[in-house]
Amino acid sequence: MKLIDGGRAPNPRRVRIFLAEKGISIPTETVDFMNRAHHTEAFKKINPMQRVPVLILDDGTAISESVAICRYFEALHPDPPMFGTDAKEQAVIEMWNRRMELNLLAAIITVFRHAHPAMAELEVPQVPEWAEASKPKVLYCLDWLNGELAGREFIAGDKFSIADITALVAVDFLKPAKLSVPDTLADLLGWHERIKARPSAAA
Amino acid sequence: MKLIDGGRAPNPRRVRIFLAEKGISIPTETVDFMNRAHHTEAFKKINPMQRVPVLILDDGTAISESVAICRYFEALHPDPPMFGTDAKEQAVIEMWNRRMELNLLAAIITVFRHAHPAMAELEVPQVPEWAEASKPKVLYCLDWLNGELAGREFIAGDKFSIADITALVAVDFLKPAKLSVPDTLADLLGWHERIKARPSAAA
Repeated sequence: MKLIDGGRAPNPRRVRIFLAEKGISIPTETVDFMNRAHHTEAFKKINPMQRVPVLILDDGTAISESVAICRYFEALHPDPPMFGTDAKEQAVIEMWNRRMELNLLAAIITVFRHAHPAMAELEVPQVPEWAEASKPKVLYCLDWLNGELAGREFIAGDKFSIADITALVAVDFLKPAKLSVPDTLADLLGWHERIKARPSAAA
Repeated sequence: MKLIDGGRAPNPRRVRIFLAEKGISIPTETVDFMNRAHHTEAFKKINPMQRVPVLILDDGTAISESVAICRYFEALHPDPPMFGTDAKEQAVIEMWNRRMELNLLAAIITVFRHAHPAMAELEVPQVPEWAEASKPKVLYCLDWLNGELAGREFIAGDKFSIADITALVAVDFLKPAKLSVPDTLADLLGWHERIKARPSAAA
């Protein structure tokens, strides 16, 4: 088994933090995706979506999509649980992970990909108007999340979960997108300090 | 328990097809989302993301996000499995469901929301350039999927799964987005005929 990884981008980091929280170590190969190494024909055979990370199983099966890779390890190593245990907890964590991914992280990545000059060759065509339209969506989401986190320790409730990992990766990706958490959002900033202090956040 | 539903939009339909495949029937309340009923303050308390569907549990917990709702029922009613059983199958189905959702369905919804005049009040601001940029992404994805389906019965392999439901809802939503599957994509069209013929597709 090996993990094909890709540096500081949000999704590879999401998987690395997940593995660190689980205490799992696996051989890793790094793809230089800023130099388009994931756009080669050889890599397209591994993942037609041309994205990292990809987990290669011992039988050759290639698992792409960060959350699919995380679920594979959750099934093999259930403790500590990152996707919940009973039906309700699993549903609540799935809901929060998706909210963090589809509303927050996706909007931040959109701003980065469609506005950052370094992405002009990778995001074709860049649509600067879409980046601009996404900025207020990011700020709305941060503000709403701040309200949700008042009196709550973690994103999905009272336990650390994959939703915290997704949200951490999203908040840390504000900087490359030239955005930031407004100083007034104290509950969100407090949550960020707590999660950033976990050893896994260095992954 | 009750399901707050919303007519013919792709995500509510995804949950209805899932429930039909499982043989589960639950009380349903319909929100008139074309008339912005999901943008009221009362609905925002149920789902701050202002989207349907939402599942209300007997203890009052509101589960939004279609896939979170589906996972809740998968945990309570595992047969027939729609998310896989062992670690590898679960990961492969998660990967395919995400490919169908994040690459295909999301791009089709983007074309609809950012180009259709009926969405001008709901998608603010509409970015027609983003709709235009998404059209070739949809066609690329359909073409690639056609190649994948050569000699394969279902999206994620040899079993029907949630990935087929997501892909069916996506392909059926091409029409409102004023797109269609090119006639040359015989394997994709064959898969669509097979899935459309299942009783659940009427949901």
